[in-house]
Amino acid sequence: MELPQSATVCECFARDGLQREAFVPTEKKVEIINRLMRAGVKRIEATSFAHPKYLPQFADSEEVLTRIERVAGARVLALIPNTRGFDRMLSMCEKGKGPDGITVVVTASESYNKRNVGKSIGGSMEEIAGIVPRAKAAGLSVIGCVGTAFGCPIEGEVRPEAVLELARRYRDMGADEIMVGDTTGMSNPLKTHRLLGLLTEKTSADLIAHFHDTRGMGIANALAALQCGITLFDSCLGGAGGGMVKETEDAHSGNVATEDLLCMFEEMGIATGIDWDAVVDCLPAAREILGRDLYGKAARTGRVRH
Amino acid sequence: MELPQSATVCECFARDGLQREAFVPTEKKVEIINRLMRAGVKRIEATSFAHPKYLPQFADSEEVLTRIERVAGARVLALIPNTRGFDRMLSMCEKGKGPDGITVVVTASESYNKRNVGKSIGGSMEEIAGIVPRAKAAGLSVIGCVGTAFGCPIEGEVRPEAVLELARRYRDMGADEIMVGDTTGMSNPLKTHRLLGLLTEKTSADLIAHFHDTRGMGIANALAALQCGITLFDSCLGGAGGGMVKETEDAHSGNVATEDLLCMFEEMGIATGIDWDAVVDCLPAAREILGRDLYGKAARTGRVRH
Repeated sequence: MELPQSATVCECFARDGLQREAFVPTEKKVEIINRLMRAGVKRIEATSFAHPKYLPQFADSEEVLTRIERVAGARVLALIPNTRGFDRMLSMCEKGKGPDGITVVVTASESYNKRNVGKSIGGSMEEIAGIVPRAKAAGLSVIGCVGTAFGCPIEGEVRPEAVLELARRYRDMGADEIMVGDTTGMSNPLKTHRLLGLLTEKTSADLIAHFHDTRGMGIANALAALQCGITLFDSCLGGAGGGMVKETEDAHSGNVATEDLLCMFEEMGIATGIDWDAVVDCLPAAREILGRDLYGKAARTGRVRH
Repeated sequence: MELPQSATVCECFARDGLQREAFVPTEKKVEIINRLMRAGVKRIEATSFAHPKYLPQFADSEEVLTRIERVAGARVLALIPNTRGFDRMLSMCEKGKGPDGITVVVTASESYNKRNVGKSIGGSMEEIAGIVPRAKAAGLSVIGCVGTAFGCPIEGEVRPEAVLELARRYRDMGADEIMVGDTTGMSNPLKTHRLLGLLTEKTSADLIAHFHDTRGMGIANALAALQCGITLFDSCLGGAGGGMVKETEDAHSGNVATEDLLCMFEEMGIATGIDWDAVVDCLPAAREILGRDLYGKAARTGRVRH
C-alpha cells in the first residue's frame, strides 16, 4: 500500500463545524482556534464572510480574525461566498488582520448551487473569476472548492467531467489548490479513488480532500485519497458540521472527525506535525460549544502508538 | 483500486454482539437470527458453547440452535471455546440440530490468551488439535480464529510471524478458513494490508477479516482487507459487541457495523447477496435488545445507490 509520508490537516470546526449551529460567542471560537494552532494544526478555516443575514454565526468574522493569535507556520483561512464578502475580508487585510488565504466555492451540481447560493454554476464561476485575481494581488492564497463533487442529494450522480472542468477553470484563474468536496457524504472509496485519480492525472493542481462521514465511509474515503497521493485534508473536531442530506438536517452527516483522521495518519506513520493529545484536549470545549456529544471514536479509547 | 466482485459477511450480533451483555431472551435471539438469514445473510454466528458459568448469555445455545429456522444457503456457525463445549455441540449434531460449522479460538498474545481462557497459546492449540479432526469427521466446517492478531491491549505489538505460525498450524490441522481478528480495534489500514498480505502470500488458507471500530478505522481496515483480496468479513448489527480495551469496558469498541460494511460493499459494486434495507429493518430490534442506541452511521441517512 503506497502512502505519502506526511499530510496536512485543515481544521474546519470554527467554520464548517459551526455553520448550522446557533451563534457561538466569539471568545469561544477564538479560544478553540488558538488551542488548535498551538496543538500544531497548520491550517485553520477560521470563519466565513457570508452575510450575517444568511449565516448569523459568522457575524463576528472580523472580530475572530482580529482576536485570534497568529502562530508561526499556521495558515488562517476564511471562506468567501461572494464579492461583497470578499470586499469585507479585504478591508481586514488592509488593517493587517486578514487571513492568509481564502476559499471560494461552487458546487458541481446546478441544483445544489442554486439552493446553496442562489446562482447558477456559471454565475458563481463568473463572480469567482472576479475575486481570484484580486485575492492573488493582495498576496492571499486561493483555494477553489468544488462541492458535491461525488454526488448531489438533489440531482444524484455528478459527472466526473463536470468536476474536472471546474477544477481546470479554477487552475486557469490561478487558484493555488482545488478542494474536492463530498459535501453530503455520498462518496465511497472506489468513487473517491477514481475521481481524485482522474483529477490528479488531468490537472497539475494540488488537491484538498473534504469528506463527510454521513454513511460511515469518511475515514475509508480518506484512505482512498491517500492512495491517490493526496496530502491535504479537511476535518472537524468530533466530526462536527454537516450539510443538507436528502433535504433533511442530520447531525450525523458531519465532517470527518479530526481526531480520527489524525489517529489514522499517525498510526500509519504519516507525519502531521500535530500533537494528537492536544487536539483531543479541545474536545470538551467543542462539546460544550455544541451542547451535545460528538461522533469521533479514537479519543474515547486513545491511540495505539505514542 | 483492485477490489473483489463479491464478498460474504458473517453476522455476529447473536454471539460477539451479545457476549458481554445481560442475558437476552432466547426468542429475541432467534427472531433476529431468522430475520438476518431471511435478509440474505449467508453466515450467522448464532451462539457460543462457552460454559454458562462464564458466559451466562449462552446458557441457551442448544435452544437457539434448535429453534432457529434453517434457510437454504445460509450457514449457521457456533463458537467452541473448549472440548467440553465441543462435546455439548456435538450432541446437538447427533440430534440433527447442530451448526454447519464451528469457530475455534486462540489469540496471538500469550497474556491475552491466558486472560481470555486461562491457558497458554500452546495449551489452547493442543486442545484445538483434538477438536478439529472430530469436527471434520462430523461433517462440520472449521474456522480457526487468531485473535489479537493486530495488537494486544496487554502486550502491545504482536509479531506478524506469530500470527502466521498459528495460521499454518490451523491449516495443517485441516481448518477450512482462518479468521484474523482485530479483537480490540488496534489495527490501522497499513498494518491490515501488511498482515493480510503476508498471510495471503504465505498460506493457502481462506482468510476472514474481523475488525472492531474502536478507533474509527474499522471500515477503512475492511477496505484495506478488500485490497488484499479478502472476501470474508465479520460484522455486527449497529456495531454492537466489543472486547477488553485497555483493561476497561468501552461500548464504543464494538465490531464493525454490518449495515455500514454492507453499505460500502454495495456502493462500490461488490455484491453481497444481502437485502440492505431488510438488514436495516433489524436495527430497532437490536437496539431494543441492547437497551441503547447503536453506532452504525449508514442507516441514519440511507444508502446512495439503490
